[in-house]
Amino acid sequence: MSLMTSWVAGADEPGCDFPLNNLPYGVFDDGRGPRMGVAIGDFVLDVGAVDHGLEPALFAAPSWNAVMAAGPEVWAALRARLTELLGQAEHRAAVAPHLVPLEGVRLLMPFAVSEFTDFYASKNHAFNVGTMFRGPENALPPNWLSIPIGYNGRASSVVVSGTEVTRPWGQLKGPQDEMPRFAPCARFDLELEMGAIVGTPSQGMVSVAQADEMIFGYVLLNDWSARDIQAWEYQPLGPFQAKATATSISPWIVTAAALAPFRAPTPKRERELLPYLREPGPMLYDIDLEVALAPEGGEESVIARTNYAEMYYSAAQQLCHHTTSGCAMRTGDLLGSGTISGSTPGSRGSLLEMSWGGKEPLELPGGATRSFLEDGDTLTLRGAAQGDGYRIGFGACTGKVLPAVPQPDWTKD
Amino acid sequence: MSLMTSWVAGADEPGCDFPLNNLPYGVFDDGRGPRMGVAIGDFVLDVGAVDHGLEPALFAAPSWNAVMAAGPEVWAALRARLTELLGQAEHRAAVAPHLVPLEGVRLLMPFAVSEFTDFYASKNHAFNVGTMFRGPENALPPNWLSIPIGYNGRASSVVVSGTEVTRPWGQLKGPQDEMPRFAPCARFDLELEMGAIVGTPSQGMVSVAQADEMIFGYVLLNDWSARDIQAWEYQPLGPFQAKATATSISPWIVTAAALAPFRAPTPKRERELLPYLREPGPMLYDIDLEVALAPEGGEESVIARTNYAEMYYSAAQQLCHHTTSGCAMRTGDLLGSGTISGSTPGSRGSLLEMSWGGKEPLELPGGATRSFLEDGDTLTLRGAAQGDGYRIGFGACTGKVLPAVPQPDWTKD
Repeated sequence: MSLMTSWVAGADEPGCDFPLNNLPYGVFDDGRGPRMGVAIGDFVLDVGAVDHGLEPALFAAPSWNAVMAAGPEVWAALRARLTELLGQAEHRAAVAPHLVPLEGVRLLMPFAVSEFTDFYASKNHAFNVGTMFRGPENALPPNWLSIPIGYNGRASSVVVSGTEVTRPWGQLKGPQDEMPRFAPCARFDLELEMGAIVGTPSQGMVSVAQADEMIFGYVLLNDWSARDIQAWEYQPLGPFQAKATATSISPWIVTAAALAPFRAPTPKRERELLPYLREPGPMLYDIDLEVALAPEGGEESVIARTNYAEMYYSAAQQLCHHTTSGCAMRTGDLLGSGTISGSTPGSRGSLLEMSWGGKEPLELPGGATRSFLEDGDTLTLRGAAQGDGYRIGFGACTGKVLPAVPQPDWTKD
Repeated sequence: MSLMTSWVAGADEPGCDFPLNNLPYGVFDDGRGPRMGVAIGDFVLDVGAVDHGLEPALFAAPSWNAVMAAGPEVWAALRARLTELLGQAEHRAAVAPHLVPLEGVRLLMPFAVSEFTDFYASKNHAFNVGTMFRGPENALPPNWLSIPIGYNGRASSVVVSGTEVTRPWGQLKGPQDEMPRFAPCARFDLELEMGAIVGTPSQGMVSVAQADEMIFGYVLLNDWSARDIQAWEYQPLGPFQAKATATSISPWIVTAAALAPFRAPTPKRERELLPYLREPGPMLYDIDLEVALAPEGGEESVIARTNYAEMYYSAAQQLCHHTTSGCAMRTGDLLGSGTISGSTPGSRGSLLEMSWGGKEPLELPGGATRSFLEDGDTLTLRGAAQGDGYRIGFGACTGKVLPAVPQPDWTKD
């Protein structure tokens, strides 16, 4: 696959995140109210306003859920029609009036999240975290090589890129403390992840192949994490308030169709998987990922680079496993991949790993250091699949850390 | 408070679950489509069809979410108006045509569940389970007396009473097995719980008192649990597929207003709570609960009796804790109390406890025994607050266990 050319300004430029090959879906507001849009070059197309050839009802709400629920045939028809409208110059006169410059629009949540599930499926991440807590011999939990471990997160805290994130309060208890106290989180962290979005719903068990077909697209995802809250609360039932402050996603849903040329295999299995989890073909994607941190008023620097193909389990395997119990999956369900870490120090997807639990603070340009996030820090996730002369970009997933709110009266002695 | 009399047949009978004091909210279908209803005596009132004095839009959807979102003033106004219409004989002519006999209607989900959180907040239950796994000295996790431990469950699997529950498949690995296998659950269990339903939403931290005011009402809740799936999957991130097959709720939302005369205190604290979790007054309720089991074609027998006031943490405390991280709560959020167990063998809320992990099978009338649930078993939860000459009943929460589905091809070697 090579660059597909478009008449829209910027779309054919090298390094453009949104060439005609991409066509990611979002929701934008240019001051005239929120509408469904597709990014192309330096513009967003007001997709409901053009002759898309589909039911107008699919574009009535400012959210992609109705299109997602409509299923793969509609997805393919819309993509084909948009490729035609934005690729062939004969449509320019009809379509150009509905292009809005990206610069200046506000991007909103591209879909309504039904439920949010987060996984723990990068082996390097699980190994790093396990080593810190239990030593390298017992780093991986016994089930890890057999199950794509997941837990249910909180959909109400999923926010779109650009939303500021307020440092949470919570119960904290250090290993030396006799009793817990209620205080602002002191070990606030990021988690670099990809999010897979369920398009078509299911009832009962589905196979890995069926699960893969249910996935509408992908976003970048930062699962903000309060490590000190987590350490005290998570036994025996898992993370709860430590993960409920915010989960940021990038504003554009990059479709599975756009990513198809970038399929990558999961790594060689260290333990044979049960048959239901075996993949009929490569189901990961080769997507370069990076995390950048900018202190308040300071310069941004990249603190990690990795790739989605580092995962041990694909989103299709995770979704398949999610349905084994008969659990119904719905349009708008969001599945976080789990923190994506590579095998080298520069490729770790969380500050917990980068600073090795705070023991080896990260050095930033200008002399500042970070063990965990400080107030005023802005984090930006970026990602793109690199094609032959083009890229499938995700746009940025950014969020600034605000100080904790003042202590409410009812929390005081 | 004593019995409030009604002109509706059955409402003043001793032992009636639905006297005028109760007025629980549900959704019913008598063959003419689903509508919002209130139970009274032997009938359900088609509440949208009478002169309720509120916005008709609140009764447009067959779900109580719009009323729940409208807040405490609307809740009080509706309750006052229904009390008038169903209590004063002068309204009989206008209202009676909109009463439908309860016998013969199908009861549907009374509200749309936004998200489902399940807690672990009965000390006897936590102690029993902990004793089985870690011995009595280490039975309670270190955080248990400080935190109302909770985890996010799956809203898509919440079903209304009467829905049959299919035994799940899952990854199982016994302590002696070298590798896991994919098989139907062999340790399928119930969990006797109460569910609290969030009416008014919140953004940011709320106090226990504010949380209590956000709660619209309560239901009985059976959180079906696959103990063998849970044992293998739950470390380190908590229960996932073990709890995703089904969660059954009783069909009537019993309002906090109806339960107000039955307030009960949480027990004496064994460790002082942090200030934010302290209650300004009694926030539990005195609600008698029971579980009955009927084998296929066999007789029903009560296998457990307990009371909601056995909880260590109230729903208000749980909801308050849920918001500490800044987690937004929404109309329709459902909070499971956690399994409710008393201190005696006959008051345990799960078969895991009743059969002590399968070591002491429960004897049923007629000679059958149960360690865990068998196909064809029907479970029924019942509950009521006992007033002076009346009761606030919840109606039954029932579910029959169906055999696992045949093994799908893709799960075979």
